Amino acid sequence: MPIIDFRVRPPAGGFLSMLLYTDAARRDRLTRQHGFEPAPSAVKKSLSLLLTEMDRVGVGIGVAIGRTSGPLGTISNAAVMEIVDANPGRFIGVASIDPLHRRSACAEITRAIASGMRAVNIEPGSYSQPLTADDRRLYPIYAHLEDAKIPAIIMAGGSAGPDLGYTAPECLDRVAADFPSLRIVVSHGGWPWVHQMLHIAYRRENVFLSPDQYLAGLPGHDDYVNAANGFLSDRLIYASSYPFMPVDAYAEWFKRLPIRPEAMEKILYRNAADLLGIGQAQ
Amino acid sequence: MPIIDFRVRPPAGGFLSMLLYTDAARRDRLTRQHGFEPAPSAVKKSLSLLLTEMDRVGVGIGVAIGRTSGPLGTISNAAVMEIVDANPGRFIGVASIDPLHRRSACAEITRAIASGMRAVNIEPGSYSQPLTADDRRLYPIYAHLEDAKIPAIIMAGGSAGPDLGYTAPECLDRVAADFPSLRIVVSHGGWPWVHQMLHIAYRRENVFLSPDQYLAGLPGHDDYVNAANGFLSDRLIYASSYPFMPVDAYAEWFKRLPIRPEAMEKILYRNAADLLGIGQAQ
Amino acid sequence: MPIIDFRVRPPAGGFLSMLLYTDAARRDRLTRQHGFEPAPSAVKKSLSLLLTEMDRVGVGIGVAIGRTSGPLGTISNAAVMEIVDANPGRFIGVASIDPLHRRSACAEITRAIASGMRAVNIEPGSYSQPLTADDRRLYPIYAHLEDAKIPAIIMAGGSAGPDLGYTAPECLDRVAADFPSLRIVVSHGGWPWVHQMLHIAYRRENVFLSPDQYLAGLPGHDDYVNAANGFLSDRLIYASSYPFMPVDAYAEWFKRLPIRPEAMEKILYRNAADLLGIGQAQ
Repeated sequence: MPIIDFRVRPPAGGFLSMLLYTDAARRDRLTRQHGFEPAPSAVKKSLSLLLTEMDRVGVGIGVAIGRTSGPLGTISNAAVMEIVDANPGRFIGVASIDPLHRRSACAEITRAIASGMRAVNIEPGSYSQPLTADDRRLYPIYAHLEDAKIPAIIMAGGSAGPDLGYTAPECLDRVAADFPSLRIVVSHGGWPWVHQMLHIAYRRENVFLSPDQYLAGLPGHDDYVNAANGFLSDRLIYASSYPFMPVDAYAEWFKRLPIRPEAMEKILYRNAADLLGIGQAQ
Repeated sequence: MPIIDFRVRPPAGGFLSMLLYTDAARRDRLTRQHGFEPAPSAVKKSLSLLLTEMDRVGVGIGVAIGRTSGPLGTISNAAVMEIVDANPGRFIGVASIDPLHRRSACAEITRAIASGMRAVNIEPGSYSQPLTADDRRLYPIYAHLEDAKIPAIIMAGGSAGPDLGYTAPECLDRVAADFPSLRIVVSHGGWPWVHQMLHIAYRRENVFLSPDQYLAGLPGHDDYVNAANGFLSDRLIYASSYPFMPVDAYAEWFKRLPIRPEAMEKILYRNAADLLGIGQAQ
Repeated sequence: MPIIDFRVRPPAGGFLSMLLYTDAARRDRLTRQHGFEPAPSAVKKSLSLLLTEMDRVGVGIGVAIGRTSGPLGTISNAAVMEIVDANPGRFIGVASIDPLHRRSACAEITRAIASGMRAVNIEPGSYSQPLTADDRRLYPIYAHLEDAKIPAIIMAGGSAGPDLGYTAPECLDRVAADFPSLRIVVSHGGWPWVHQMLHIAYRRENVFLSPDQYLAGLPGHDDYVNAANGFLSDRLIYASSYPFMPVDAYAEWFKRLPIRPEAMEKILYRNAADLLGIGQAQ
């Protein structure tokens, strides 16, 4: 069973000009707060080293997540696909958009999917004009994604936004309710709104959680793990949030969590493969 | 010691036309998310089977909770009392009201109590016009209940409302503060606002928690159990939320929780009996 | 290693006319909800007995926290310093202010620091006009404190305010973000917003948590302890919140928590000493 790592920003091309790589001190401080050491590939900004680290633990595919942000930096969808295309079979591209221009955003989504991207990443609190997930300006874009059957990844947790108010869990809940057939992956698992986000996933069958880096060394760990063994086994998705977590050491740590084997297989591979429609291609 | 199950909607009469029974697929999905199998009596819509299930584990009394709701369905107080009266000693009736008409709501409360009902169920987020618990329109009704010394059951958790914003815990806290002698039972235990609701119960002596179905298989489980063994032993109340949970298997599961015997006795019987004024009648 | 107890209101002088001592029944009820018995020194209102209790467990210094409040009572900064000065080396004074008059508040801060006080206590929800931590009227005061490098203690948890809405965690997060070099100690650890407050401390390096009494017998206990052993060891601060907790029995209980020794030493002494600038003086 290969692993799909659902959140990776490879040290290559346009990613290197983003905050992830330009402010190594901030990134490494967070990595250490989770109890991990920075990945050599991140420190050295070496894509080939990242591929080696992926190979070492069986991460077959990294989902390369684009980003359009003020404070966190931006990478174009074309630049993401350059890296995907240059490394056949190793990465899946996820598009980002500028939500303040709905027509061009929808057109860009169409182009991105045509180029091979499989989902769209929405980071409401991190746009140059910070939004909540239920901001009215995002609703035409959610509608477009729902109609086109394209999954959305929504960053509704972590440090997503100027302050904690931007990840208030009711905002994400409204989106899930208003677009019931839009499949939504909540990156960062909605942390720190652990109980609330697990409620949303309990209630809304179209919500998937990917706690990624926020599973390690933080409160809520046991709650996510219990949900993995319980009602959420089909909708929990593994990710490292690389370069915040090393792809190899993090996968090794994750595989040792007390999650029953059939749930672990779903979380590490099957749930993401089904969502992205790559199960068939394996 | 008989058990009082504080939240039961028997498969009989007016209950059968509510969402609980008309959308069995939704109900059974939720039951299974808690790790339980649907109750045969719920599947077969058999009141006599429910009574057998109650007998099997010593559930002497089921508190039959009425409901006035748009999306979840409505049962009249008279229809609840028909079931109560037809099964002497097995059920206690709890009234519901339409909060948008305060005068007729208060008159209905007077009638319902006169007919033998022992409390009033308020489900703010589930009315045809969804409200929060602290909506101004509910305040005349709370005032009436406080003055008449009638307990209120408030659904301030679970999936109570169009989205999670309708169960924001500060709303319930305000009601508890503004009506300090109104005894309030928070059905669903206020889940998923576990820490917040336990804070409210810590601060407000008039707040009782009944986590019912949301205790099983969900985050917060240990927090409720610890509170049961600690400061909340006099104000935690057992309920199955039948038909979401089977009355028998759920009671058996609950009795095995690591709760000290004297607290368990209060939670399964004494706290509810005192609240409803039925201790004397036993 | 002496212990610094970061939140103490000694039974002497102006403190005796505050709610802490005038409503002993309320105080003792809360003490018992945490699983402790009231301190003899609190019951007898005996400062000398408190000093004995401190000595018995090695509490070298108590941080005597002033308060300006409507419902909770007020003590002047001069009255706090009388107690500090009368018991050399045993207490550190922390000032309070009336936030509604910014010029006189800032002047009072200058006077208080000159008199030997080491920090300023802000209790937004407990002023005679209750505020949230991010109320605009507090911002000139935060600015003054940041510029003067004076730590702020902010009560953003517990029962701080008329209802739970006054401790909404995003309010504290905004203050921490808007004044990045203001060192903020969150008294009561921001409880019950446990996950959220730990997120804020994870994100903001200028935030310190002092869960004090709310660590005992309440949900979130394990989360604070895990953070103490993890990313928060340099920014967790011990306090008893005396007279709510007995200084001696609480310290004994705390020292038995599963916190690794080097973190325990920081939490009981070093973090507070560095923050208050008293490390040198020991």
